[in-house]
Amino acid sequence: MQQKIVNPGDLAFQLYELHDVESVLRFDRYADHSRETLQAALDLALKVAAEEFAPHARLVDEEEPTFENGRVEMRPEVRKALDVLKGTGLMAASQDYERGGMQLPAAVAQMCVGMLKGANVGTQGYAGLTIAAANLILAHGSDEQKSRYAEQMLAGRFFGTMCLTEPHAGSSLGDLRTRAEPRADGSYRLFGNKIYISGGDHELSDNIVHMVLARLPDAPAGVKGISLFLVPKILVNEDGSLGERNDVALAGLIHKMGYRGTTSTMLNFGEKDGAVGYLVGQPHQGLAAMFHMMNEARIGVGLGSVMLGYTGYLHALDYARERRQGRPVGEKDPQSPQVPLIRHADIRRMLLAQKAYVEGGLALCLQGAMLVDEKKFAETGEQRELAAGLLDLLTPVIKSWPSRYCLEANSLAIQVHGGYGYTREYPVEQFYRDNRLNPIHEGTHGIQGLDLLGRKVSLAGGRFYQALMDRIETSIGEARQHPRLTDNADRLERAVRAMAEATDAINAEKSGGDKEQALANATLYLDAFGQLVVGWLWLRQGIRALAGLAGDGEQTAGFYEGKLRACDYFARYELPGVLHTAELLKAVDTTALNMADEEF
Amino acid sequence: MQQKIVNPGDLAFQLYELHDVESVLRFDRYADHSRETLQAALDLALKVAAEEFAPHARLVDEEEPTFENGRVEMRPEVRKALDVLKGTGLMAASQDYERGGMQLPAAVAQMCVGMLKGANVGTQGYAGLTIAAANLILAHGSDEQKSRYAEQMLAGRFFGTMCLTEPHAGSSLGDLRTRAEPRADGSYRLFGNKIYISGGDHELSDNIVHMVLARLPDAPAGVKGISLFLVPKILVNEDGSLGERNDVALAGLIHKMGYRGTTSTMLNFGEKDGAVGYLVGQPHQGLAAMFHMMNEARIGVGLGSVMLGYTGYLHALDYARERRQGRPVGEKDPQSPQVPLIRHADIRRMLLAQKAYVEGGLALCLQGAMLVDEKKFAETGEQRELAAGLLDLLTPVIKSWPSRYCLEANSLAIQVHGGYGYTREYPVEQFYRDNRLNPIHEGTHGIQGLDLLGRKVSLAGGRFYQALMDRIETSIGEARQHPRLTDNADRLERAVRAMAEATDAINAEKSGGDKEQALANATLYLDAFGQLVVGWLWLRQGIRALAGLAGDGEQTAGFYEGKLRACDYFARYELPGVLHTAELLKAVDTTALNMADEEF
Repeated sequence: MQQKIVNPGDLAFQLYELHDVESVLRFDRYADHSRETLQAALDLALKVAAEEFAPHARLVDEEEPTFENGRVEMRPEVRKALDVLKGTGLMAASQDYERGGMQLPAAVAQMCVGMLKGANVGTQGYAGLTIAAANLILAHGSDEQKSRYAEQMLAGRFFGTMCLTEPHAGSSLGDLRTRAEPRADGSYRLFGNKIYISGGDHELSDNIVHMVLARLPDAPAGVKGISLFLVPKILVNEDGSLGERNDVALAGLIHKMGYRGTTSTMLNFGEKDGAVGYLVGQPHQGLAAMFHMMNEARIGVGLGSVMLGYTGYLHALDYARERRQGRPVGEKDPQSPQVPLIRHADIRRMLLAQKAYVEGGLALCLQGAMLVDEKKFAETGEQRELAAGLLDLLTPVIKSWPSRYCLEANSLAIQVHGGYGYTREYPVEQFYRDNRLNPIHEGTHGIQGLDLLGRKVSLAGGRFYQALMDRIETSIGEARQHPRLTDNADRLERAVRAMAEATDAINAEKSGGDKEQALANATLYLDAFGQLVVGWLWLRQGIRALAGLAGDGEQTAGFYEGKLRACDYFARYELPGVLHTAELLKAVDTTALNMADEEF
Repeated sequence: MQQKIVNPGDLAFQLYELHDVESVLRFDRYADHSRETLQAALDLALKVAAEEFAPHARLVDEEEPTFENGRVEMRPEVRKALDVLKGTGLMAASQDYERGGMQLPAAVAQMCVGMLKGANVGTQGYAGLTIAAANLILAHGSDEQKSRYAEQMLAGRFFGTMCLTEPHAGSSLGDLRTRAEPRADGSYRLFGNKIYISGGDHELSDNIVHMVLARLPDAPAGVKGISLFLVPKILVNEDGSLGERNDVALAGLIHKMGYRGTTSTMLNFGEKDGAVGYLVGQPHQGLAAMFHMMNEARIGVGLGSVMLGYTGYLHALDYARERRQGRPVGEKDPQSPQVPLIRHADIRRMLLAQKAYVEGGLALCLQGAMLVDEKKFAETGEQRELAAGLLDLLTPVIKSWPSRYCLEANSLAIQVHGGYGYTREYPVEQFYRDNRLNPIHEGTHGIQGLDLLGRKVSLAGGRFYQALMDRIETSIGEARQHPRLTDNADRLERAVRAMAEATDAINAEKSGGDKEQALANATLYLDAFGQLVVGWLWLRQGIRALAGLAGDGEQTAGFYEGKLRACDYFARYELPGVLHTAELLKAVDTTALNMADEEF
């Protein structure tokens, strides 16, 4: 199978050698699984991604969905690909057997969706959102909601959406105004306007189940007064058959720079009598319910960003090997043949940077997914609590780091292609446009920075932060056993110390009272913290590669040497940047904070 | 006039206070000019940019030119805007009065085109290429070529193109294959295929004059065997009237990520009997002729990148002031009104970064333009030689620095807009797509890095490099007179020293023999060198702002405070990065160089 979605050798290395995904098979939930069944799911997802999703990725970009006669029209290839996906059962990859699921470990289930994202993020959007919406119902809904809606969604009969944003309330969810009025039969009628609703309308499924945040009449102001509702596009009768059209209207499509295959819509709820909705979970607990799923959703965003970077890298690598251009430095004979691009040092630097970003990002997202399973199923409460805390701490990093660095990988993939990369005749410019969404949605960089520095770092008195640093120190100690990695370990150690000093300085400032000042550079903190974490994951990959070279591994010597080289790249080219950001953070710099409006 | 193209106060500050453009009025060529005439040209260009170019910038992106019935079709607004431009005489802004020109200083002439680029880079492309092609004829052509072609081009009757790239020869121009066969009448017949020819075909002008690089039959291989030819789309009779169609055929259009308004074409020369062409300058000296114009062309690219960043910044600033979202850190009352985005520290940081990039980039490009005039007209041969050397040294920086950092400014402008910034309903996503071309064309980052480190730094035994560093040291000394700028001066000094050590180490390596190793990180050298130069220009802006605050200036106190703040931002947030890149360069790092193909 010809594909440029993922390097299967790297994926195997990461899953089985680096993260030891087989270790979670000890949990009862995964008792029926073996490496063979995990790999079979991955192989199936890759096959569907390569054969059904990738071929029309450009098509849905060039011919994006349109709004005609009140309906959304789109290319027929989208439905065909999604129909194949439904048939595989992969939409329920992580769910219970009894709901029609596969009960796959989180890392494998995430990876199955991730490969679809790398292949065609636009078409994948419909499935990804449906999975997310179904998970929300399964986590917080009633048994009736689970069987009537979630099971239909996992089977692909119904699709789903997440309706959070309103025109005047983006990052500031507490300001949303959509209201829900209770009715005597226990249902609600919703009134309000939502924007940026991906997959908000289409003809790809029999029904669309909107998960809508809204306010009850007695709701307190702000984030504490938000409830979660299930609002189907078409009402569902008790026997599961479809009834009347609900009062949900498509108000228009939004046209985006990229990610064009996934319709982005404006939806009006309750233009007439109110849209029929059903409360999911407890009143006023909607945001908590939503955020309960946020860790996994944000791993999904991070992994999507990684996979767009990854496919760009594989395309650039292929191009650099095939395309002949120029001659080596020092070659004086103009009649000597042109050499492949990869022969030039600067091209290799750009490829190595991409490799470091995308394989580092993959290690990061899989680390998060491993913690999802540890958090749920680990043997002791202490282990589960630790895993939950580490996951909470890492979530803003997993969401944001790939969306910066794997977007940069996409830019480098364009650069390797030269002028061709800027044209729509090659796919890399689309990856770059598609990926530019990721630093924005599901919480911008700015929001993630406030989450990390304002909340997560000091969670439980900083215990999880310390636990992460301890793990990093353990890896550093381990690396120091190997002369090949001593310098890399030293560089990571310096970064750890610098960030520790910065964190202490900011905390002192914060306890000193000026919280705004303490958080002024939270986005830079997020970035440096992410570099530190990925530096750690690269050191671990280096350690594992040495074991592989010593015979304890399944990959080639060249593969392991490449891992060591990328580990070097990260330590030498990337980690030093942490030191200067940490200096700035330590000084609790207020240059931007103090800039007055009239000074711009 | 409502416009978001440039801050007129900043432009006045940069031209009249920072760079003292009036100083070049001492040269005979500019004897008729005064600040009033310069400003009148700038005001006219800004008015045309805002009123004729900006309004259809989105339109030519959404409805890019098409290839129908052998013709290029495009929106009528393009022709209308260009017709207005032709009428102003601005296409000949820098040219001699006797050629119909305005004899404006380089900084002003560049800025006039720059404002058109910021307003609508797609439509501007046709004019910009015409000016460049005409300049080439005026510099190297015969008198007949000048009057028959160049003057028609400056008047806008004919448009022009640059035909360099061929499908198999992009950065490697020495490999181009288009051949030119001499005819008895002194003309030539050209045969070959060119790609990425911007403005290669259209109906906007009576004729199109292609400046084509090709090989004569006796040409040596490589770059030393390339000659320059003038190839009109329609042959021009001796009396200036139009004759037969030449053998130049449009083979197709290339579709790009951005810059869509400027048609990018594939042209076939000599499908039938050969395209009639005329030699410009000496045989085999075509590349030298082309590169003779390269300094100014590359200032144009750099400035175009700056102006796209600049308009993005002004849009983001406006949005941040208008859009209300969220509450200040520490505000607990969810019913308190939402505040404008600019009230958030992270938004101010993103705006300040954009300001530092675009105003720093503008200072850089104008510095280059000032050197263009000094190089041509300064009183002594020594002064002219020094200016020429400094310009040669700075050219790769002027070409590349804005195309990285002002592209980053465009990304930050999207981020300030949040989800709206990712939609095509707002203009910032287009600026980002348009600007992504600039790191590629007119020499990629990689090519500029090799030019800077492999040639320019060691030009004349490093004399110009040293002269630049001396100027920087002078500014550092000057800044140290002001307590407000001592820390900024110290930071720049550290960066200067670090780069000096890196340069010495690389030179030692190079003289040691392994040139490939010495140049392996040339792109990083280029980047750090650029940061150093822009750091210097920001320090100079800081010094000038202090003078302004002391009463010697025309702008408001808030304006000058903002300049100081941006000077601080650059010193604190940007310059430290130079130190770690310099460390890497000093170590002559070979991580990427030594990466083997099979290790990817």
